[in-house]
Amino acid sequence: MIKGLLTEVRTKKPLIHHITNMVTVSECANATLCIGALPVMAHAPEEVEQMVTAAGALVLNIGTLTQDQVKSMIIAGRKANEKGIPVILDPVGAGATDLRTDSANEILRQVRVSVIKGNRAEISILAGMGGQIKGVEAVGDYSDILNTCKALANKYGTTVAMTSKQDIVTDGETVYLIDNGHPFMGKVVGTGCMAASVIGAYAAVEGDTAKAAAAALATYGIAGEMAASRGCSGPGTFKALFFDELHNLSEEVISERQKINPVRSE
Amino acid sequence: MIKGLLTEVRTKKPLIHHITNMVTVSECANATLCIGALPVMAHAPEEVEQMVTAAGALVLNIGTLTQDQVKSMIIAGRKANEKGIPVILDPVGAGATDLRTDSANEILRQVRVSVIKGNRAEISILAGMGGQIKGVEAVGDYSDILNTCKALANKYGTTVAMTSKQDIVTDGETVYLIDNGHPFMGKVVGTGCMAASVIGAYAAVEGDTAKAAAAALATYGIAGEMAASRGCSGPGTFKALFFDELHNLSEEVISERQKINPVRSE
Amino acid sequence: MIKGLLTEVRTKKPLIHHITNMVTVSECANATLCIGALPVMAHAPEEVEQMVTAAGALVLNIGTLTQDQVKSMIIAGRKANEKGIPVILDPVGAGATDLRTDSANEILRQVRVSVIKGNRAEISILAGMGGQIKGVEAVGDYSDILNTCKALANKYGTTVAMTSKQDIVTDGETVYLIDNGHPFMGKVVGTGCMAASVIGAYAAVEGDTAKAAAAALATYGIAGEMAASRGCSGPGTFKALFFDELHNLSEEVISERQKINPVRSE
Repeated sequence: MIKGLLTEVRTKKPLIHHITNMVTVSECANATLCIGALPVMAHAPEEVEQMVTAAGALVLNIGTLTQDQVKSMIIAGRKANEKGIPVILDPVGAGATDLRTDSANEILRQVRVSVIKGNRAEISILAGMGGQIKGVEAVGDYSDILNTCKALANKYGTTVAMTSKQDIVTDGETVYLIDNGHPFMGKVVGTGCMAASVIGAYAAVEGDTAKAAAAALATYGIAGEMAASRGCSGPGTFKALFFDELHNLSEEVISERQKINPVRSE
Repeated sequence: MIKGLLTEVRTKKPLIHHITNMVTVSECANATLCIGALPVMAHAPEEVEQMVTAAGALVLNIGTLTQDQVKSMIIAGRKANEKGIPVILDPVGAGATDLRTDSANEILRQVRVSVIKGNRAEISILAGMGGQIKGVEAVGDYSDILNTCKALANKYGTTVAMTSKQDIVTDGETVYLIDNGHPFMGKVVGTGCMAASVIGAYAAVEGDTAKAAAAALATYGIAGEMAASRGCSGPGTFKALFFDELHNLSEEVISERQKINPVRSE
Repeated sequence: MIKGLLTEVRTKKPLIHHITNMVTVSECANATLCIGALPVMAHAPEEVEQMVTAAGALVLNIGTLTQDQVKSMIIAGRKANEKGIPVILDPVGAGATDLRTDSANEILRQVRVSVIKGNRAEISILAGMGGQIKGVEAVGDYSDILNTCKALANKYGTTVAMTSKQDIVTDGETVYLIDNGHPFMGKVVGTGCMAASVIGAYAAVEGDTAKAAAAALATYGIAGEMAASRGCSGPGTFKALFFDELHNLSEEVISERQKINPVRSE
């Protein structure tokens, strides 16, 4: 199902414009480069429209948001909409503070977002189902999270990509369950943010955003599996190997290892 | 003396709210996660009060300060005081510019700080004893640095944690001298900043802040020793291994290797 | 020709003041430390004059510029000029947006820059010869790039250091062609930015800025060659080894491996 997408990313080398947090910005840039696309980070309100016009996708991440930065995100997002460029939103910490919840909702009201990528709490909160978050990490139980993902997808006519042990991707109708990945990925700050960058790279070359997001998360998880299998001794060495494996991925390895389970919704 | 603190951090997983510099913010987040706590970075004035309310400790670092950021630090710090949440201050580069010295002093006037963590020059300058700093690195000789640490601790009724070849921690009365660590730690940018994150994690679970800071610095130094012993070939590989070892620490290794020498002041 | 410069950096440990982007700021600080100088990052308008006064060089990088940050760059740059401190400009993404092109030109009008370090597109655009850039990466063909470098050097009475497979350094008259480096360096985000930091360290100890820049780029490329020869398996492990090798460089290795070809212009 996802055959050829990595090759297309590497051939087209789409520019992935990020407006993102200060914590994992270097990691996102490197992940974008490793997967085969070109990263650019730019948030000044005077330049975001011009920058996004050259981009294949726009990734918005509110991890260390300010009100000015959110304004730049909306300016860039609206221009991306005008030009038909997919927008990925990573609502980091939505639910942890009103500023984060309100900003994520405001972006969703003003920008047509192609993919919302978040953890269980963030997705649940944006779907209006409540949720508990400790800083930027989901805590608590989420029964019926699949329906929550669908509800959020339908609320905004978007694709939802919820990352967890099993990732869920849905456009409200088609559902992909993805079982790739490795627990070590949770030990490194920024693996969530980088996943959004890789989704951006795939969405830049594949118009079916649910398929793009599912393929991206499987691919990304496979890199984590490969890195973990290489004898790392902790999160520090894992992280270095993870970038190696993201860079070294091939269509063959992806075909062999991908665990995407597409489910047509009843 | 410090037995059980690491386990408590890993069990309680306190949220460590950072308002910090743009250089080592990723390192601080990863160190926090590796030690077993949860990092969150948030500096927008509209959200810092709400974020810190959920935190186990607040870490303030002026490494790339702006006046707006210092305002957010004070807002967050005052809320932390109100809620009884420990505040760690890392006065990076105090003495290098008036803005840094004045901002550190202003924070100390407006916020009750639990631990001031700094190098010899920063501690000496805040104690009013003068000192020389080249950018953010202490230079010059500091005779009688122990009394300088005590003087600063007494000036603000706080704990001072001075990092050097031998770390000094004092609340003005009890003194801990800590001989853990490795010279390689001085070759990686951010080891000072990360130490403050680890102190924050320990202060979140141990009310005796001098004990918490001493335990944190010993633990942190041990991770450095372990990493250096693993055959790294320079600062780049050392850094990856350092995160591994911070993550892999056990109570047993800490008990065996800790070199904390408590000295009751005369 | 470049013998002794590394030793001089390591003996004098000049402070390299950066006003730089949020993506690679940690990498720049670590590269500065690895080469033997001291990094400091400071951008608040209230402190940049005081900070730069203590510095051996000032590095300005517009990778994630804002208008406020450019103002700080100009304040710092003018003070550096007044004090005779060399200024290195990395015009990241000039040509990609008007804000970047205009800001780079404004800095060049208001500050006497010692070295402009850029890729083919950035140099060509600032020389007024046009050029194509995708985000921050040069695309397209650049015939006669040597004359473009000379033209830019002469336009501002500065040294131009253009990084590519073969680096070109020229002060408008003397030309150095440098063939050190490794393709892996293009797989890691920030290798361009870090090159400017190393040029800053060398310019702090060598008044002939063309010679300093050529020596810095050769030295830097040699670290890349050494890292690549150590069996890295991708960009992540390469990056760790690159910092190791930058730190482990010796005058002997540099003498043996340097491929600087000085060409007196006709």
